[in-house]
Amino acid sequence: MRVVITGGAGFLGQMLARALIARAGLIGSHANPGLTELVLLDQSRPSSRIEDDRVSYATGDICDSALLERVLAPGADAVFHLAAVVSAGAEADFDLGMRVNVDGARAVLEACRRQAAPPRLVFTSSVAAFGGDLPEVVSDSTAAAPQSSYGTQKVIGELLVADYTRKGFVDGRSVRLPTIVVRPGKPNRAASGFMSGILREPLNGQPAVCPVPPDTKMWILSPERAVDALIHAMELPAAAWGWNRTLNAPGITVSVAKALDALERIAGRETAARVRVERDPEIEKIVLGWPARFVTERAERLGFRADSGIEEIIRAHMRTLAIQ
Amino acid sequence: MRVVITGGAGFLGQMLARALIARAGLIGSHANPGLTELVLLDQSRPSSRIEDDRVSYATGDICDSALLERVLAPGADAVFHLAAVVSAGAEADFDLGMRVNVDGARAVLEACRRQAAPPRLVFTSSVAAFGGDLPEVVSDSTAAAPQSSYGTQKVIGELLVADYTRKGFVDGRSVRLPTIVVRPGKPNRAASGFMSGILREPLNGQPAVCPVPPDTKMWILSPERAVDALIHAMELPAAAWGWNRTLNAPGITVSVAKALDALERIAGRETAARVRVERDPEIEKIVLGWPARFVTERAERLGFRADSGIEEIIRAHMRTLAIQ
Repeated sequence: MRVVITGGAGFLGQMLARALIARAGLIGSHANPGLTELVLLDQSRPSSRIEDDRVSYATGDICDSALLERVLAPGADAVFHLAAVVSAGAEADFDLGMRVNVDGARAVLEACRRQAAPPRLVFTSSVAAFGGDLPEVVSDSTAAAPQSSYGTQKVIGELLVADYTRKGFVDGRSVRLPTIVVRPGKPNRAASGFMSGILREPLNGQPAVCPVPPDTKMWILSPERAVDALIHAMELPAAAWGWNRTLNAPGITVSVAKALDALERIAGRETAARVRVERDPEIEKIVLGWPARFVTERAERLGFRADSGIEEIIRAHMRTLAIQ
Repeated sequence: MRVVITGGAGFLGQMLARALIARAGLIGSHANPGLTELVLLDQSRPSSRIEDDRVSYATGDICDSALLERVLAPGADAVFHLAAVVSAGAEADFDLGMRVNVDGARAVLEACRRQAAPPRLVFTSSVAAFGGDLPEVVSDSTAAAPQSSYGTQKVIGELLVADYTRKGFVDGRSVRLPTIVVRPGKPNRAASGFMSGILREPLNGQPAVCPVPPDTKMWILSPERAVDALIHAMELPAAAWGWNRTLNAPGITVSVAKALDALERIAGRETAARVRVERDPEIEKIVLGWPARFVTERAERLGFRADSGIEEIIRAHMRTLAIQ
């Protein structure tokens, strides 16, 4: 099968690409020949190349219809639409967020619609879909009420994916991912990025700043489980999704303080002491507006899985460091 | 105050215009000079002119930024964004619906954003925001899950209005209107149009077709109360809305059978007998997907009001016929 990943040069896109390559087959069908071609589309090429004959690269603007047409035209069985301007970025530059997150999603959907056989499309949405007067625990029936431009744009993407699916233009599936922790590499403009930073940087011998109070709770998922969720979302048959094409992915609720306790238990007091709290009202406003507690019954019924706890997440991150 | 109505040549736009003119003042402030100018923007001029020096007309495409800029540039205190492709129309022509209902709403919001003083904006949304696995009674916390392109496009409009408001680009308010009954004039492409037709046409001595089973329940509001709701939405202070800029307007639940019973009581058996049931699967699919029962606590707390019953609605329509 031929797969396209938008945002394929980003950390999640790269992890997803490696996971797809490592998999023997896809969609669990005997008739399926597994991955035959994987196109990574992004603004620029990733810094590290994946050594595999099946991988190719395409670079350009996510709103460029001709580019998308070219990438999809040989036939795509699955598209993972990951390209996005992240939360603090979309808040700082409203027009850029609208262009990439709304117009970009629409361009990808339109390109899928123009194919003879509309592909499966997995759209990465976010916990930022929720906000406002939230119930104590968010459930599958909680109304989206985004309080950031990023969240707004992601919910618009979900709505488009659902309606394009209903019209038969694509076979779409939107997955609202928790905050991904531990995000490897450099900090990005995601407002939630500190939750990775306070674990990643100290483990790397570096200081880190926590911009929110230590009792701040976050709804998180490891990159490994996030990639599993995206692949599972793609592999599930359309009937398993039914009319409802938007899903709250499972995660775990962890406070900053509990995460630092776990870091201390695993890596020692000196490591954990590299984190200092220095509150940032801008970040706080966005992050404290997100819900931290969920029940994700539908996702669990559909076979999505979260991490067992923050210690597992930290240890998994340390294993990836050891490999590098 | 200077007011702009998009969709100003439509029946609701015309009724709203006449209601605004009939009002002594607006926003209930002593400092407010009342209506000084009213611009009716639409694709074409309305068939009947409103005789009032304060009224002017603008014609063109709702996505035409230059036109919107020209209409808003002298300063607008309030914009009522009514222009839309209705439900069955947006279902039949997906691209037209996206263009008018999504791109049009965005163009209006962008034009508001470019003003020195962002106006109040009232956006007409719809009960079509709801669908899928609905609770028996829709409440203020029920999640939007549109099952039509029209509903999808309206919810996208609501999300944009909310985020533009949060960013301070506009002071927006979205009102989800029930099905408007009795809609005067010719039938349009609204899937719910029959609910007006089965009352309006028989009263006019004409036959009418009901495309859904008689036990079909609808959530309805008279045009008079809908206009009241739009004006009230505009006049409420921003603080009354708070962060939540989307509201389910009040209405009443009426079955087709009960509406025809009321018609018979008011206008006689012969009149009611002009309606015959001839089911239309396309219409049925859209209309039966809409919720018919609501509790609208927030709207009532904010002072919005529904009609007292279907008889009041029919009698109000008969009075407008007597005036014409």
